[in-house]
Amino acid sequence: MQSSTPQPGRPDPSNVLFDPFQSTVTQGFWTELSDLKLGTLRLSEEPLTISGFWGPSNYEGVPPQLQVDNESFRLAHSSAEVSVGIRAQHEVPGTLHNLNSIERFRAFQANKRSAEQATALQIWQDILSGAAEAQPRLLQRFLLFTFADLKLFRYHYWFAFPALKPPAPFTLEQPVAGLTSAFGPQLAAKVARACQSWRERAHTQLQPDGKPGTRQPAWLLLIAQDGHSARCHPLLAWQQVKREAAAQQAQDGCAPEAAAWEPGRRRPDGSVQQPRVAELAASMDPSALAHSAVHLNLGLMRWRAAPALDLEKLATAKCLLLGAGTLGCAVARTLLGWGVSSITLVDSGRVAYSNPVRQSLFTFEDSRGGATPKAQAAAASLRCIYPHVEAEGRQLTVPMPGHPLTPAELSQAEEDAAKLDALVADCDVVFLLMDTREARWLPTLLAATHGKLAINAALAFDTFLVMRHGAPPVPDAGFLTSHEARAGTSRSSGRPGSAPQRLGCYFCSDVVAPVDSTVDRPLDQMCTVARPGLAPIAGALAVEMMASVLQHPAGIYAPALDTSGAGFGASRNPEEGQAFSQCTACSACVVQQYKQQGWQFLQQALQDPKGLEDLTGLTELQEKAAAAAELMDLDHAGSMESAGALEEGGDEWTAL
Amino acid sequence: MQSSTPQPGRPDPSNVLFDPFQSTVTQGFWTELSDLKLGTLRLSEEPLTISGFWGPSNYEGVPPQLQVDNESFRLAHSSAEVSVGIRAQHEVPGTLHNLNSIERFRAFQANKRSAEQATALQIWQDILSGAAEAQPRLLQRFLLFTFADLKLFRYHYWFAFPALKPPAPFTLEQPVAGLTSAFGPQLAAKVARACQSWRERAHTQLQPDGKPGTRQPAWLLLIAQDGHSARCHPLLAWQQVKREAAAQQAQDGCAPEAAAWEPGRRRPDGSVQQPRVAELAASMDPSALAHSAVHLNLGLMRWRAAPALDLEKLATAKCLLLGAGTLGCAVARTLLGWGVSSITLVDSGRVAYSNPVRQSLFTFEDSRGGATPKAQAAAASLRCIYPHVEAEGRQLTVPMPGHPLTPAELSQAEEDAAKLDALVADCDVVFLLMDTREARWLPTLLAATHGKLAINAALAFDTFLVMRHGAPPVPDAGFLTSHEARAGTSRSSGRPGSAPQRLGCYFCSDVVAPVDSTVDRPLDQMCTVARPGLAPIAGALAVEMMASVLQHPAGIYAPALDTSGAGFGASRNPEEGQAFSQCTACSACVVQQYKQQGWQFLQQALQDPKGLEDLTGLTELQEKAAAAAELMDLDHAGSMESAGALEEGGDEWTAL
Repeated sequence: MQSSTPQPGRPDPSNVLFDPFQSTVTQGFWTELSDLKLGTLRLSEEPLTISGFWGPSNYEGVPPQLQVDNESFRLAHSSAEVSVGIRAQHEVPGTLHNLNSIERFRAFQANKRSAEQATALQIWQDILSGAAEAQPRLLQRFLLFTFADLKLFRYHYWFAFPALKPPAPFTLEQPVAGLTSAFGPQLAAKVARACQSWRERAHTQLQPDGKPGTRQPAWLLLIAQDGHSARCHPLLAWQQVKREAAAQQAQDGCAPEAAAWEPGRRRPDGSVQQPRVAELAASMDPSALAHSAVHLNLGLMRWRAAPALDLEKLATAKCLLLGAGTLGCAVARTLLGWGVSSITLVDSGRVAYSNPVRQSLFTFEDSRGGATPKAQAAAASLRCIYPHVEAEGRQLTVPMPGHPLTPAELSQAEEDAAKLDALVADCDVVFLLMDTREARWLPTLLAATHGKLAINAALAFDTFLVMRHGAPPVPDAGFLTSHEARAGTSRSSGRPGSAPQRLGCYFCSDVVAPVDSTVDRPLDQMCTVARPGLAPIAGALAVEMMASVLQHPAGIYAPALDTSGAGFGASRNPEEGQAFSQCTACSACVVQQYKQQGWQFLQQALQDPKGLEDLTGLTELQEKAAAAAELMDLDHAGSMESAGALEEGGDEWTAL
Repeated sequence: MQSSTPQPGRPDPSNVLFDPFQSTVTQGFWTELSDLKLGTLRLSEEPLTISGFWGPSNYEGVPPQLQVDNESFRLAHSSAEVSVGIRAQHEVPGTLHNLNSIERFRAFQANKRSAEQATALQIWQDILSGAAEAQPRLLQRFLLFTFADLKLFRYHYWFAFPALKPPAPFTLEQPVAGLTSAFGPQLAAKVARACQSWRERAHTQLQPDGKPGTRQPAWLLLIAQDGHSARCHPLLAWQQVKREAAAQQAQDGCAPEAAAWEPGRRRPDGSVQQPRVAELAASMDPSALAHSAVHLNLGLMRWRAAPALDLEKLATAKCLLLGAGTLGCAVARTLLGWGVSSITLVDSGRVAYSNPVRQSLFTFEDSRGGATPKAQAAAASLRCIYPHVEAEGRQLTVPMPGHPLTPAELSQAEEDAAKLDALVADCDVVFLLMDTREARWLPTLLAATHGKLAINAALAFDTFLVMRHGAPPVPDAGFLTSHEARAGTSRSSGRPGSAPQRLGCYFCSDVVAPVDSTVDRPLDQMCTVARPGLAPIAGALAVEMMASVLQHPAGIYAPALDTSGAGFGASRNPEEGQAFSQCTACSACVVQQYKQQGWQFLQQALQDPKGLEDLTGLTELQEKAAAAAELMDLDHAGSMESAGALEEGGDEWTAL
C-alpha cells in the first residue's frame, strides 16, 4: 500500500515498490457476515480465517483490487473442492476480527499495531521458511477488522495489507519494464494465451494446500496481468526478497516493521472517514430490510439468553386462529413477534365500533360504513405490519352445539364444518379464541381428530384461562390406564420415551354436553366485559405456551410440568388436568364417531347435544349420581345442578 | 288507537271513538335510554315512569302523535320546575319496561296482555275514583316496552295506548261538531287566543301534581286544538264516561278489557314488522358511534363485575408515556382500552424495520425510507384507532446521567429537561418505559418533585418488572420515621388517614448513582431481546396497576398491599419496597436540590453522577462499607462490586 522506504527525490527504480491496494466489499460479504454473526459466532470475537480475491489493475494509476464477498467465508471454511472463481482474481488468506461493539472496535483500532505486527511476522516467517515460495499467496495476507451493527445495517471496517518495511529496501537487480521486455515477444504471447485460456474455463479447481500448479494461476500469470506496468508485483521480486530477508534476519534477528492500513475514504467536506463505514440500509429493498431486522431480533435471543432455541420450529409452524377478536388480535401479534410466518384467522363477524380500542389489529376505518369482516381485516393488518407474513382471513362461522339451525343454516353449517376440518388438518397449531364455550367444542374435536396442538384462551372480567389441550386420544381405547396411554401414544406417534396419562381438554371437566350459552343473557354477558389488560396478557401467554411446547422435544406429548428443564419454559403451567375418558369433545369414542360418520355425527351433536351425553355415557353417570344423591341425602341433591351451571358459562374460567 | 267497539255498518255518531295514536321516538330518547341503562339501570328490569308528549293532529285522517324524547326521562324523574315545553304537545304518563335481552323482550311480548290489563285497570280506577277528573292526563296512560341492543345501536320497541273496551260503548249525548259549534263564536275566539298566547310563552311552568290550571293546558285547550274535527277527544266526553263507567262497574265489578297495541310498521315486502325496530347506527356519525360503542364497553363493567368502578377517574387521567417502543405501544393500547383520553408519548427514535412486529402501534410503512419518528407515529396510530383520543407525540431525548455531552448537546439537554419537567408537571400519571436504567433517573426525580404517580416497567429476556413509585418525599425531611412520614405526607397532601412509610422508587435499592449502561455492550444487550410475549404482558399490567391505584381512595398514597378491599385490585403487587432516604432519584434532599437549583443541579448530576452519591451520603456509606469489609474479611470485600454491577443493568430486573 505504500512505498517501503521513503526516498528523497525520485525513487530508485531498482527498489521494490509495493502496490497500494484498494478494498472492495460486496453486499454479499456483509450479508454473509451478518448471518454468521447472528447464527453461529454470536458473542465470539475469535479471529476468523477468510479469503480475499485480488487482481492487478489493468490501468496505470488505478490500484489493484482486493475484494471480499460471500465466497470469502465459504472458501476459507470449506475444503473448497469446487468453486466458481472470479476469473481475474486470486484467492489470498485473510484474518477477520469482528468485534462486538463500537467501543471494542475503537479499542482495537487504538491498539491496531499489535495485529498488524503479528501479520507482518507471519509473512516474514513464511518468507524465511520457504512456505511462501510453495504458496505465494501467503505473502498477500491481509487483515480486516469490523463491527457489524446488525440493527442499523451499518458496518464499520478497516483493512490492512501489511507491506514489510525492512531497514534497507528490497531491491531488484534488473527492473522489469512490462511483459514483452521481461520475457521477449514469443514467451509473452504464450503467457498471454495461457492466461486467456484459464479465464475461459468455467470452474477453477482450487487445491486446498494452495500449491501452484496448472490449475491455479501463480506468479507467472500475475506477471502477464501486470505486464503493461513498469511496476513489479512483489512475487516477481521473490528471489531477491528471499535473499535480502535472510540477510536482514541474520543481522537484526527480528521481523521488520510493516505499514499496513488502507487509507480512509474522503468525505464530501474533505475530511477523511477512518475507518470506513458501509451503510447497507439505503441500498436494500425495504421489505428485505424488514425481514432481516426481524430475523436479527429473533436471532439475538440465541446469543446468550436461549442458545438452544430452535427458531425454525416456530417460523414454520402453521397457526390457525379461531376468533379474531381481542384474543385473536393479541395472539396474532405475539406470533408475529416470534417470527411465525403462516397465520390463518377465522371469524364470522365484522369490525364493530367498539373493537379497535381493544382489538389490536383494527382501526376506526375498519369499523366504518359496512365494516370490514374481522378475519380479512386482521389478515390485511398483519401484512401491513410485516409484508413477509403469509396471513389469510376466512369469514366462517364455527358450528356450535345447541344453537338451533334452520334447514338453510344446516346446509351452511355442513359447509363450514368441512372447511374448518380442512383448516385444522392443514395447520400445526390451532388457537381457540372464541367468545362462547360451545364454539370451542367442534375445534377441540377436530384438533383431537387430527392430532394438532390446541391452545385455548378465554377471558372473564378479571380472570382468564390459558391452557393447552392434551395429545389426541388413542383409537379404540375408551378409558386409558397410564400403561395403555404410554403404549398407545408411543405406538401411534413415535413420541420419545414414556409419558404420563394424556392431558385434558377444555371440556374434560364437564359432566354435561355444551349447549347454547348465548340465549337470554343481558348485554354485559354478550360483550367481552373484561379489564382491558387481560386480553393482551392471555393472548401473549397463549403464544408463549405454544412456543414452549413446540420447543419441547416431546412436542404435543410434553408433560404439563417438566422439571427436567427440557423445552423452553414448557413447565410454566401451574395447574394440570388429566383427560376424561367420557369427555364430549376429545374422548376416543367421540373422535371415533366423527371419523366414521363425519357430518352425520356432527349434525346430530349440533342439533341435540344430549346425544353426546348418551354416546359418552354421561347420561348414565348423571342418572347414577342423581340416584345416589337421592338415596343418600335429599337435601344435597343439588350437586348435578351446580355441575350443570357450567353450561351457562357463568363461572367457567380458571384464574391462572 | 282503535275504536272501542266494533260496530256493524256505520258507527253510531253518539259512540265515543278513540283516536288511533301514532308513536314517534326521537333519537334523543334512545340516547337517553342508553345512558340510563348503561350508567344507572344496568341489569334492572324494574318498570320506569316516563313522560310522553301528545298532540292532536291538525289534519283529517292523520292520527294524533305521541312522542317520547330526551325530556321523557327528565320530566318523569325530576320535580320538573322549569322545562321547555313542546308547544303543541301535552305531557302524559307512561310506563317503560326495558328488558335485558331479546329473549326477555319476546317473552314479555308473548305475555303482553297482563301489562296491558294492568294499565287499563289503572285508568279504570282513576275514572272511578275521580283522580282522572283532577288529572285528565291519567286517562292517557301509555305503555312502552323495549330491548335496547346498545352494542348494535338497535332498539326493539312496542307501544300500547290502552283504550277501554266496555261491554257497551261509551256514548255522547250530543256529538261535538267543532269548536265554534260547541262554544259559539265568541267563546271559541277566546279559547283560540288563550291557546295562542300559551304557545308563544317561552317556558311552561309545569306543576308536579299535574293539576289543571292556567299554566298548563287542560282539556279546554285540547278541544281548541281539535276543534276542526268532528271527532271528539275522550276528555271531552269526560262526564259521560264517568257516568257510564260507574254504571258498568256496579254491574260487572271489574275493569273492562282494553285494546292497546300500536300496529306494526309495514316493510317494503308488505309484511308487518312487529314489534318495531329503530336502527340508529345508520343515522349516526361514525365517530360518534365509535365513541358511544367504546363508552358502552366500559360502562358494562359496572353492571355486575365492578359496580363501584369510577370510569371518570380513568377517562380524565392525563397519561405521559416516556418511551414509545414495545412497552410504550402496549401501555398506550391498554390505556385506550380503559377509555383514557389524553395520552402523550415521548421518544427520541424513529421506527426501525424490526419494530412493527413487536411494537403494536407501527406498520411496515412507518419504518420505510426516512422512517417516521416513533412518538409521532404512535400518536397518529392511536388517533387512527380511536378518533376521540387526544394523543400527542414528542420527539425528545430524556437526558441521562453519565452519558457524556458536548457543549452543543448540553444546551439541547437543558432544553429537553425543561420540556420534560413541563410535561411531567402537566400530567397525572407518568409511565417509565425506556430501554436503559439511567433514562429513568430524571423522570423519577420529576415525578417525585411534582408528586405524580409514576409507573415503571422494564423487560429482560424472560422476566420483567412492573412497579409503581411511592408518594413524593416530604420536603426538608432527610430520613423519615414512620411517624414523620405520616405527619408529613398528611400535612402536605391531605391524604386521608394514616399511612405506612412511603414506597420506594426504581433507584431506592441502589447504593450507587446511575451511569451510562450502553457503553461497550454487544448487540444482544443493545436491542430488546425478550420473549415476544413479555411486552404485552408487562405493558398491560402497568396499566392495570395504574387503574387500580387511581381507583383507590388514597390514590398515590395507597399502600402496596391493601387487604381492606379498597380500590380496585390495588393490592395485586406481590412485593413491596420502602423508600430509601439516600436514594439518588426520589429522596427529599435530591428533590430539594432540584427545586432550588433546577438545571444547574441537573447538569452536574448528568455530567458527573458521582456528585449524587456525595449529595445523598452514598459516598460515605460506600467508604464505611469498604472499610468495614476490609477490617472484617478481606476475602469478601467484593460486596461493593456486586452492588456496583447493578449499574451495568446486567441483572437488574425483578421477576413478577
